[in-house]
Amino acid sequence: MRALSLQDSVVTFRESVQEPHKCEGEVLVDVILAGICETDLQLCKGYMGFSGILGHEFVGVAREGRYAGHRVVGEINCICERCEWCLNGLGNHCPSRTVLGILNRDGAFADTMLIPERNLHRVPDSVSNERAVFTEPLAAAIQISKQIDLVGKRVAVLGDGRLGILCAQAIRLSTDAVVVVGKHPEKLARFQGLGFECYELSKLDYRTSFDVVVDCTGSPTGLEAACGLVKPRGVVVLKTTVAGEHQLSLASLVINEVTVVGSRCGPFDEALSVLEADAIDLTGMVSHRFPLERGVEAMRVAALPGSFKVLLDPQR
Amino acid sequence: MRALSLQDSVVTFRESVQEPHKCEGEVLVDVILAGICETDLQLCKGYMGFSGILGHEFVGVAREGRYAGHRVVGEINCICERCEWCLNGLGNHCPSRTVLGILNRDGAFADTMLIPERNLHRVPDSVSNERAVFTEPLAAAIQISKQIDLVGKRVAVLGDGRLGILCAQAIRLSTDAVVVVGKHPEKLARFQGLGFECYELSKLDYRTSFDVVVDCTGSPTGLEAACGLVKPRGVVVLKTTVAGEHQLSLASLVINEVTVVGSRCGPFDEALSVLEADAIDLTGMVSHRFPLERGVEAMRVAALPGSFKVLLDPQR
Repeated sequence: MRALSLQDSVVTFRESVQEPHKCEGEVLVDVILAGICETDLQLCKGYMGFSGILGHEFVGVAREGRYAGHRVVGEINCICERCEWCLNGLGNHCPSRTVLGILNRDGAFADTMLIPERNLHRVPDSVSNERAVFTEPLAAAIQISKQIDLVGKRVAVLGDGRLGILCAQAIRLSTDAVVVVGKHPEKLARFQGLGFECYELSKLDYRTSFDVVVDCTGSPTGLEAACGLVKPRGVVVLKTTVAGEHQLSLASLVINEVTVVGSRCGPFDEALSVLEADAIDLTGMVSHRFPLERGVEAMRVAALPGSFKVLLDPQR
Repeated sequence: MRALSLQDSVVTFRESVQEPHKCEGEVLVDVILAGICETDLQLCKGYMGFSGILGHEFVGVAREGRYAGHRVVGEINCICERCEWCLNGLGNHCPSRTVLGILNRDGAFADTMLIPERNLHRVPDSVSNERAVFTEPLAAAIQISKQIDLVGKRVAVLGDGRLGILCAQAIRLSTDAVVVVGKHPEKLARFQGLGFECYELSKLDYRTSFDVVVDCTGSPTGLEAACGLVKPRGVVVLKTTVAGEHQLSLASLVINEVTVVGSRCGPFDEALSVLEADAIDLTGMVSHRFPLERGVEAMRVAALPGSFKVLLDPQR
């Protein structure tokens, strides 16, 4: 099979990779579409020290097991099912987990991938592949409302990129008072088209006026900027994962008694329900679509400022 | 009157300062004892850009008003009483506040100070001056239990200094499972003497095993160290305010979905009750006591690694 592989911060397209060896409970899935995420770009910069086949956002067809022949999406944390965390329903924090395309497990940028069957969710027939491939990042966006109460809150989404547009729409399912703050007028226009009140960060008049600020910048300076927008006693949700160490001026966090909440993976079942109900608009989310053998180019394009979601299409 | 003043990061003892001009609602207080805090040392490094008379931990005697002739301690935030924050009982976050010896208001390192009468609390007769002077930092320590539920939690206090010993004891009022983690065996011995389980940070075997970690290090690296001790989904309480920037690898905060809570000032009434009930041990907390005219030396000594609480004694 073919795959896009990361080794020592270099991404390579490999024509002939051996199909993976199955362990108990795992099934093979033929990948239909896979999405390139900011995390993939960070992995290439050394985040997590990952080596192997990249990719954790996908829709595919299960080759075997209870979903054989059906379209599936898959949760990315592969867990032990036995530890305290797993037994308490917090398997995403299982200390011996592997994570698809991120930690000690090959991912979805390949013709075929291996995944525990328990991680799979069947895609409803009414949800197209082009929408289903957003299940994983949409679940992560929905996770915010699982961690903090958003009802009646005035929320700012900081960041006008791929993650921002999913988070802003997911948050709007809980509160109408969602504002988007970004740096790029041309990217903010996309949010305006979806009916969001938008502001350029440098031109924002009323600072420290949001109950909740969600950092979707993907930038190491995002947290400090978010702390500058949130009210005293407010909440900053940190969605950004970046490689490396950062210098941040965090005195305002103490002075204003701000709460910062790290937020990662979310509920796939709810994300699929939202997609099935057509409750969020994904029009124009995909800026590029590449066949798998042009994956190296696809990764490069995904990192360009003008790009939005870039998909890999092993079937093409 | 005499005072210890900060200007352009230089502390000077001034023999002859004019007594401050009173505004409505303010009273003069003759200072009996004042404590030097890590925040004072940070102010000297440029934190908050403060100029003026330092000092926010004190016990004194009110010269006038309802507490005339009585011993008092005072809350440090001087508020407008009219804004949304003040009207909602969150005056500590009043955007137009001044803060005693920290923000646009002279402080307590002087013979006499000015403070809004509403900020004062009468010191119970059974509480000595040497204990009453700890009311402000003890209130800040008690604030942790006001912000997060500590009952039944396994808590690590990170930092073996002045703030750590107050926080550890205040937290023990809510949960028995308090561990102290520090860098200095000789300082940790003080905590052991109070019955705390203590660990050196470099020798700690079981990391990421605490439900709550309180950063009392006063160091820009404290937050990152705290994130390394806390369980996934756990809480880090940030008590440290430092001039300049924190060093932090943010990824673990997101991956482990950690919550960071900034924590500042606390309830004086509860702190005085704790002192009156003799519920915390302050034996040996004071390492040095200087007359006001040796204030410059006192500040230098307070910054030495071997020092604990340094008091200024304008009456001496």
